[in-house]
Amino acid sequence: MKALGKHILVEFYGCDKDVLNNSKLLDKEMQYAAEISGATIINSTFHTFSPYGVSGVVVIAESHLTIHTWPEYGYAAVDLFTCGDTVDPWIAFEHLKKILKATHTSTIEMKRGQLNDIKGELRHKPENAII
Amino acid sequence: MKALGKHILVEFYGCDKDVLNNSKLLDKEMQYAAEISGATIINSTFHTFSPYGVSGVVVIAESHLTIHTWPEYGYAAVDLFTCGDTVDPWIAFEHLKKILKATHTSTIEMKRGQLNDIKGELRHKPENAII
Repeated sequence: MKALGKHILVEFYGCDKDVLNNSKLLDKEMQYAAEISGATIINSTFHTFSPYGVSGVVVIAESHLTIHTWPEYGYAAVDLFTCGDTVDPWIAFEHLKKILKATHTSTIEMKRGQLNDIKGELRHKPENAII
Repeated sequence: MKALGKHILVEFYGCDKDVLNNSKLLDKEMQYAAEISGATIINSTFHTFSPYGVSGVVVIAESHLTIHTWPEYGYAAVDLFTCGDTVDPWIAFEHLKKILKATHTSTIEMKRGQLNDIKGELRHKPENAII
């Protein structure tokens, strides 16, 4: 059965605490991760919490990448949700693993939108989508 | 073992196609779903695709709610990711199920950030966080 999208849930442990607390850097690197995966970025929104922690979302035409960090635990929860056949979220995973300097990771890949009646090439949105 | 957050992955099938394509309504109802769950909204961003489909994210202090819709399949992929002990994402689920008029659903609840050393009451960010 075909699925509309794939969704990787990532736990990054043992990360660099300064990186986890650097909203500007995370925004840049999450957008770069989207780009090298083949995604089309629509926008991004990142927030820094006081005294620490960052939440960020990169909305892509093919769904989204998100990150939530807990510098106090050296931990980040990352979601890489992509649709269509042209984006590879594992490229984003490898990039973020390196940037966060994670010592260990846990990943689960889920299929989203498993439907019987999907026809033709898989895209998140029709080819001529205006974004 | 304690976890920092809970994440519900929802597949909504058999939804009302007009609702799935109504970005303004989905933005309002996703924000309302966040509110009644006990979450603190930081911002939201919704996009309408041509000829159809909506992607939206509500960033909350306790992580995020997202939706991606495929009106052509009557399908929406929804993620309800909340942290801390004070937010109940299942309230958001019930509200969205009603709004989307889903005929059937599939849900998986995942624990995020399972750590040995979590101490005290669970919050996404420290109590005095500036958001």
